[in-house]
Order: sequence, then C-alpha cells, then structure tokens
Amino acid sequence: MKKQKNENKAGKLKVIPLGGMEQIGMNIAAIEYEDSIIVVDCGLAFPTDDMLGIDLVIPDVTYLKQNISKVKGFVITHGHEDHIGALPYILQQVNVPVYGTKLTIGLINNKLKEHNMLKNTKRKVVKHGQSINLGCFRVEFIKVNHSIVDACALAIFSPAGILLHTGDFKIDYTPVFGEPADLQRLAELGKKGVLAMLCESTNATKPGFTMSERTVGKTFDTIFNEHRNNRILVATFASNVDRVRQIINSAHKYGRKVVIEGRSMVNVIGTATELGYIKIPEGTLIDIDQLKNYKPEQTVLITTGSQGEAMAALSRMASGLHKKVSIRPKDVVILSSHPIPGNEKAVAHVINELSMKGAEVIHEDTHVSGHACQEEIKLMYSLVKPKYAIPIHGEYHHRMANKNIALEMGIPKENIIMMNSGDVVELSEDSWHNAGRVQAGSILVDGLGVGDVGNIVLRDRQNLAQNGIIIIVLTLEKYSGQLLAGPDIVSRGFVYVRESEDLMDEAKKVVLDAVEDCLYHHVNDWGKIKNIIRDSLSDFLWKKMKRNPMILPIIMEVE
Amino acid sequence: MKKQKNENKAGKLKVIPLGGMEQIGMNIAAIEYEDSIIVVDCGLAFPTDDMLGIDLVIPDVTYLKQNISKVKGFVITHGHEDHIGALPYILQQVNVPVYGTKLTIGLINNKLKEHNMLKNTKRKVVKHGQSINLGCFRVEFIKVNHSIVDACALAIFSPAGILLHTGDFKIDYTPVFGEPADLQRLAELGKKGVLAMLCESTNATKPGFTMSERTVGKTFDTIFNEHRNNRILVATFASNVDRVRQIINSAHKYGRKVVIEGRSMVNVIGTATELGYIKIPEGTLIDIDQLKNYKPEQTVLITTGSQGEAMAALSRMASGLHKKVSIRPKDVVILSSHPIPGNEKAVAHVINELSMKGAEVIHEDTHVSGHACQEEIKLMYSLVKPKYAIPIHGEYHHRMANKNIALEMGIPKENIIMMNSGDVVELSEDSWHNAGRVQAGSILVDGLGVGDVGNIVLRDRQNLAQNGIIIIVLTLEKYSGQLLAGPDIVSRGFVYVRESEDLMDEAKKVVLDAVEDCLYHHVNDWGKIKNIIRDSLSDFLWKKMKRNPMILPIIMEVE
Repeated sequence: MKKQKNENKAGKLKVIPLGGMEQIGMNIAAIEYEDSIIVVDCGLAFPTDDMLGIDLVIPDVTYLKQNISKVKGFVITHGHEDHIGALPYILQQVNVPVYGTKLTIGLINNKLKEHNMLKNTKRKVVKHGQSINLGCFRVEFIKVNHSIVDACALAIFSPAGILLHTGDFKIDYTPVFGEPADLQRLAELGKKGVLAMLCESTNATKPGFTMSERTVGKTFDTIFNEHRNNRILVATFASNVDRVRQIINSAHKYGRKVVIEGRSMVNVIGTATELGYIKIPEGTLIDIDQLKNYKPEQTVLITTGSQGEAMAALSRMASGLHKKVSIRPKDVVILSSHPIPGNEKAVAHVINELSMKGAEVIHEDTHVSGHACQEEIKLMYSLVKPKYAIPIHGEYHHRMANKNIALEMGIPKENIIMMNSGDVVELSEDSWHNAGRVQAGSILVDGLGVGDVGNIVLRDRQNLAQNGIIIIVLTLEKYSGQLLAGPDIVSRGFVYVRESEDLMDEAKKVVLDAVEDCLYHHVNDWGKIKNIIRDSLSDFLWKKMKRNPMILPIIMEVE
Repeated sequence: MKKQKNENKAGKLKVIPLGGMEQIGMNIAAIEYEDSIIVVDCGLAFPTDDMLGIDLVIPDVTYLKQNISKVKGFVITHGHEDHIGALPYILQQVNVPVYGTKLTIGLINNKLKEHNMLKNTKRKVVKHGQSINLGCFRVEFIKVNHSIVDACALAIFSPAGILLHTGDFKIDYTPVFGEPADLQRLAELGKKGVLAMLCESTNATKPGFTMSERTVGKTFDTIFNEHRNNRILVATFASNVDRVRQIINSAHKYGRKVVIEGRSMVNVIGTATELGYIKIPEGTLIDIDQLKNYKPEQTVLITTGSQGEAMAALSRMASGLHKKVSIRPKDVVILSSHPIPGNEKAVAHVINELSMKGAEVIHEDTHVSGHACQEEIKLMYSLVKPKYAIPIHGEYHHRMANKNIALEMGIPKENIIMMNSGDVVELSEDSWHNAGRVQAGSILVDGLGVGDVGNIVLRDRQNLAQNGIIIIVLTLEKYSGQLLAGPDIVSRGFVYVRESEDLMDEAKKVVLDAVEDCLYHHVNDWGKIKNIIRDSLSDFLWKKMKRNPMILPIIMEVE
C-alpha cells in the first residue's frame, strides 16, 4: 500500500452510505475527500408492509444538498431500480452529471424521458476498463457479472487510497453476453493495495457459488423441447436482458414467434435491442395482435409479472383481465424468477389462478440469482485483499454474514466496519474512525407527493386499516353553547351498519349522554368536549366488542 | 369392493367440504348419509393480507345449522388450530359431541375453558385403533404421524362404502413419541376396498420424503454440544410437542435448566405434560424468574415466536420489549421452523433484531415438515388404493399436484374429484356426481364481532389504508337551505396537514365553490349535494397530486 501513503496530507477519505444499509434497495453512498464528493448509485426502495399507500421510497439527500458545491457527479454501477430508480427525484435537487455504462445510461434515459428531465441532465457513457476524473477522484469502471448486463464494480482512486465498490455482482465464467467479470484487474488492484472494499451482501447467507446464467438457457431448451405442442409463456424480470435473450434463442431454435408483453419488458428490451445487447433473429418478433395468425404452439410470450405484481401482464392474464391474451388449457407458463421475500403469497396466488385455467406452471431450475454467494464473496476478498471491509447492500443479518466471511478470509475484526445509513467513517491507511452522522433516511413518495406522508399519516392509515373510523358531528350554538343538531354518527370500515343498527343506536346514546353531561356542567372547551366524547365511546366499544376504531369528533358552530 | 356393494340402497354418500379447499387452513368437511351427518375437523384460518383488521376466519356452517337434527358429532383428526380452532365459535351454533384422541381433546378443552364453554359441550376421548358409532357411520381413528402427537387418519364406514380421510399426515418410521403411522391397518382397509380417499395436499408439490422428526433432535444435540458456553434460546411451534420434548432432552443431556416461555407454549406444554406426552426430568424445568440464579450457559429458553409474530415472546425479546429476558451478545437463538408463506419478512425482521443485539441465529436443519411429500403421498395411495381420490387441504396448485400424483399411481382421471368448498359430491361404487352446492365460505372475526365485518367494510378499510379519508362537514338551515357553518375539512391518513396548509386551503375553496353553486341553483337533495362535493374535490386532488382519498361529506341541519 506504499503508493497511497499520505500521512502528511490533511485530507481524509470519508465513506457515507445514505441508504441501503437497513433494507434491501435504496442503494446510495457518498464518497468524500476534501472538496470533492462523488455519489455511487441512486436507488429507490419499494415500500414495506407498514408503509400503507406509499408508491416508492427514495433516499434523503439533505447532506448532498448542503454540500452541493462539492458534488461532482453520480457514478452508477448498473441499471436496476434499486440503483437508479431515485435519480429522477434526486436530480431535481442535486443536478450533477451521471456516469455509467451504455445500457445503464440507456435505462436512465428512459426514466428521465418519462419525467421530462432529459434536457436538464448531463449523462455520460463510460466503457468497462475506462476511467473518469471527478474532482480529486478517479473512478474506474470494472466489468462484473449480474442479472443485468453492463454491471460494474468501481475502483475509486483518492489521494488517501483506493476504494473498491463491488456494486451488485456475481462471478459468471460463461456469461450469455459479453465478458466474465474482470478478475485480473481486480487482482491487479488488490496487488497494488486497496484501502477499503465495499462489498455487497445480498446472498452472503447462502453457501456455495451462484450458477451461471447459461444453465437457465439449457433448462429453457429442455422445456421447449418437451412442450412442442403447447403455447409457452415465460415471466421474468424485465431488466434481465440475458434471460430474455436466452428465451428468444430457445424460441428461435424451436421455430417459434416471440411476443414481448408488459410495459417495462417492452421498454427495457426495446432499449437493449437498440443498443445492441440483444440481437433478435429477423422475423422472430411479432406484435401481440399478430398472435391470432399463428398456432399456439408456434408462439412464445415473454412477459412481466414473475413476482405476482397485481398490475403486471401475467397477473392480468391469470385473472382473465388481460385484453389480448387469455390463458388456455395446455398453456405452459414458466416463472423464471424466485419470489422476492414478501411476494411469496402473491406469486402463489398467480400460480393458483393459472392452474385453475388449466395451464401447467413450471418454476423449478428456471432461475439463477444475480448475486454472489459465499464462495464468490470469498473470491472477491481473495483478489482485492482490502485493508478495511465495509459490508453493504442488505439487511443487518446479510451484512453480518458478509462480515463473517471477511473474518474467515483473514481480515482482522477491528478492520471490518459495520455502518448504518448516515454514518460517516473516515479512513486512512493507519486507522479508521467514526466521524459522526449526517441526515439520512427514507422519503416516502405517494402519487405526486414526495415527502408529504410521514409517520403521523402512516400511523393514522394503519389505525384506519385495522379498525376503521367513527365520526361524530354535532352543531352547537355559538353563544349559548346549546346543542342545535346531532350528535350524528357516521362510520367507515368499522361494521356493516345496516346489520348493526342496534349497536349504532347504543353508541349514539353513549355520545349523547356524554355531550349532554358536558353541556350540563358548562364545559365550553371544545377540546375537552371532544376528549370526553372520544373516551366514553371508546370505552363503550371496547367493552362491547373489543375493538378500537379511530374516533373523530367534529364540532360545528352556528351563530 | 364386494362388501360395500349396495346398489339397491336408496341412500347416497355425500362429501361436502365446508372449508379448506381454497386456502391453507379452515379445514372442515361434512360427510352425510341419509339422516346422519358427521363433521371432520373444525378449523380456523388466519386472515389474508386483504382482510385488514381481521383476527381470524371461521367457516360458514349454515348447512349444518339447517340440518342440525342430522348432525351426530365432530370427529377431529388432530389438535392444530386449522383443525380445531373454530370449535368454540361453531359449537355455539352446532352443539354436538366432539370426538378425538387424548391430546386433541386436551387442547380442545383448553379452548373451551377460555370461552367458558366447557360445561355445555360433550367431549369424548378415542384411542388409536378404536371406533365410534355416529348415526349410520362407524368412524375408526387410525394412527398417523404429524407435527403434533396423537394425529389420526379416519376410516369412515358407511352403508355406501369406506371413506378414508388422511387428516394431516407424514410417515415417520422413527417418531420421537409413540408409534409410526399404522401402515398395516391402512393396507388392510385398502385390501377390503376403500371407496374414496380424501388426502391432504400441503406438500404435494415437494418431491421426496419428509425427514423424521428425530433428525432434528440430532441437530439440537450438535448445536448444544458446539455452544456449551452460550445461553441457548429455541423458538418453535407451541403445538410441536415432540420438538419441545427433543429440546428438553438435549438440555437435560448437556445439564441445562429449561424455561418455557410464551402463553401458547406454556398452555400446550402444560397440557401435554399433564397427559403424559412429555416426561420432563425432575429439576430440569425452572420458572423464568429463577433464570438469574443460573449462568447463561446453564439455561435454555423454549419460546413462541418462530414465525416472527409481533406479540410473541421471541419478538418481544428481540425488540427489547420482553419484561424478563434481554438478548445478550453470545446468545444462540435457534429458529426451529420454516416461515409459513407470508411470514418471511416478519421472520427476517426478528433475525435482524437478534443479530443487532449480538446473538447468533441458527435456522438451518432445525426443522422438518409435518406433512407428507410426494413419495409419502404415493405410499398412501399404494396402501389405500381408493376408487376415488379427492385431494383436500391446500390451495389449488397443491391439490393439482396431489391429483397428478393420483394419476401417476394409476387412478383414472375421471375418478379424481377436484372440489371447492360448498360443493356436494355424491358417491357410490358405480359412479360419482356433482349434487349441487350448499352455502359455505368464510366468516370474519374481529374482536368479539363474528361476521359483522363484510366486504363493504373491508373495501372501506383498504381504501382508508391506501389513501386516508377527508371529511367535509357543513351545517344548513332546515327551511332556507342556507349555509350556517362550514364547510370544514378534516383529514386523517391523507397528508400531514401542517405542512400542506396551502393544499387544504385550496381544497376548502373547491368545496365551498361546489356548495355555493348547489345552493345558488337550489339543489335541495342532500344526496346530490354530497355527490357534487365528492366529485369536485376528488377531481381536484387527483389532478393536483394523483391521489384518491375517501371523501365523506356530512351535512348537518339546524332549524
């Protein structure tokens, strides 16, 4: 590590993950040295179950806004949503250039176009092996394999030493398209001396080695061969260009026409084809409206919806809501993916619906992960041999598993750094230390509202979801305080009122008693009256039915 | 099948599943012959994600109530919630005797005690191999293995032939307690001639053979041996008495004291111990308050919460909310279960919290299923050789997988009967046919309310959960129709109002305009006024923020 020695330098290298450390997704990390900041990735997360009504989650980049003059650009490892999805939102606040490989920038362009932001954003395509200079940093894009083509690890050269950010990766010795991961360059950097490695942890709990994408192609061939008399539908991730390429290859081999269906599938495959990542044999692709001109067994549909997403093409076909495709007996449906944790029930639901329509559903051996398992992570540590290890990407137990691998690979315990989003770590060759925290966290996006739904609103939604709401309205005369109208009771999501009339009558009586008691005792404070109404009704309902709806008294005043 | 030949009989044997055919859980089936009905099992289901606020789901037994004079009793295969859980609710409407083996009746007694129903219900303990007569039926309880002891298959002898109901089963040649499944008796019945088999399907998609429960015991021994210096906590299903027995055995072998924690764990293990299903070596069990008298490495805690249930003991320990146990670094936590589909994220959350507190979490090889995989189901078909196969227990794709096994085992396609809950099938040796449908379905239980939450209420809850609610209140003078107060706008679960004051002001303006327009045009119909308010505000909010809250106008009237 001689070359990076810089004891006399005042500058310190700071690593600041702004997301991605508490959950899967929303990957973003700031790397800072003196007056330069670069940002690795800018992903979104999908809402967790308790984020009711939320569409997506983006990182809080207050720190970048506060240091906007330092921020030199975004360097993007690959084109998955959890690495690029927040860009259209964040670039509105932090408008700096975006660097990435060709397909990555292509997919970012699609996003920016949708948000009408193409004009205002600088994007630059970088090739594998190429470097760019950003402030005092030089960033080299190094080829790795992943479930999307054009994925990179980043070597970030700073005056304090080299950081190696793995991005999301697997080692595929026989990739479907392009080269295997550039193990030699990783080794060369390791030999030179890498100060710290930020290594992804998604599959760190899984033993062994992730299989090559090519193995899935063989399975497709077998399935196509065994089902020459059936129509075949394949659902997979739109972004898995290699997977789609292999499906098209099998289709071509067995003389079938291919239909691409589902908005994101059409988008991604369109972009990938334009940029030369898929070569579709001429005459293979047909429009969905042409399906009727072919026998079922002459066609393949490649669609979205492998995670059971309710609005995706496959789900709509399964539930009979798709306008152009109906599932028929003898159809063969291949689910080419594993359910992401949380989606298991939705996927099972789609499988049930497909089976009920008589389709055969195949989902064994039709997927491999895009993430490194334990043996690949070990290989990465062996090649790069970083002084410090910073496990990134994943829930705590994934990153702990990564830490345990680092320990096994001989990195001393005190050199393995477990960080949370917002933590600042300062690194030098001699030591590392916690340098405090910066603001970081999740911003919730609901419709066009970014950040206007917070904890109070979510808590209300949860309460409403569990118990419904009872609204009590009454009109008081301004000066006398006399009850002019009401109390009226309206409920939603509580009980089916027509079948519970007696209960609602009793509830009304309870409220009326409470109100009259207040008025009799000359309680004028509306807040107090509301509390008394709320408490007495709440008591009544809990005793009567062990339920706890939200109770909302509203008092109107008439002169 | 000579013996069951009864062509001249007028009677028909009817099979009527009242639940358990669309989902996992809520298993209940009526078997009817002339003036006799018996009911196999009476389980509950847990609410699906769209059943917001619902505590549990019980079957609609309208058919049994309508035919109450025929109903001779409940015959229960085993003591799991999805087979006995609805009894306290259903027995209030259909009060007939309940028959089951010793532990099953013991667990039912616990339930009835909780609901204050012990006095009013006849229960009778039946031994494996024993038969009971119920109307024109004879029911024999046959030993099978399962993840709870004392599980049974039922041979139901009717004038029309023998039905074999497998209950939930696996084949365990080396069970921890008691005998293996009574394969000889099953074979003997098969030899005699079985008209139809109702066979469970839970694991019918899984190849191979479910491992013996004893293999888990070996894993426990290994873990206990490797962690002699750590406190050990094991979370598992309370009802898996054999599992708990093996944990206690390992604890005893390695000289540890055992604490049983979690309400259902204490209940079930209490009952199982009383009835002789676990023999706990003297001095092994200690009270949770005695923990402080022992070194951590001298103790084992057996607790509930292996599914990540928020209120269970393990979750409370993991999140630091348990009153008596805190997780410490070096603790070893064994999760002895697989997540039930839908619980994956909750389980991961508990693992993360445990890891963050420094505990080591082990969950590989510490669980085996209680359900038959494909090879066991084949064995069952081979022994019983039924004329008709009726796959039961499970979602459609599970039951389809069972059907495919039946086909493989040589049962003709036309003799495999796929049923839905409420379907009535009439069977005789010569033929079977659909004999219509009876009312069947799910009754939702919320707090003490049984059936008072229906589709409208659930739809409201879903809408409230996703978008929140906006309430608009205004007071009109009765005769003039003049606006006396309001419109006031109150929202819950929509936006955080203090940060969106402008928006709410604009919304108020929109509503006021709509109301004034109504009044100006002398619209007197309140329904119309409400619709106009709702539509204009809804339009405004969708255009402004692409959101769709529930809008609830309330009009008060003052004389």
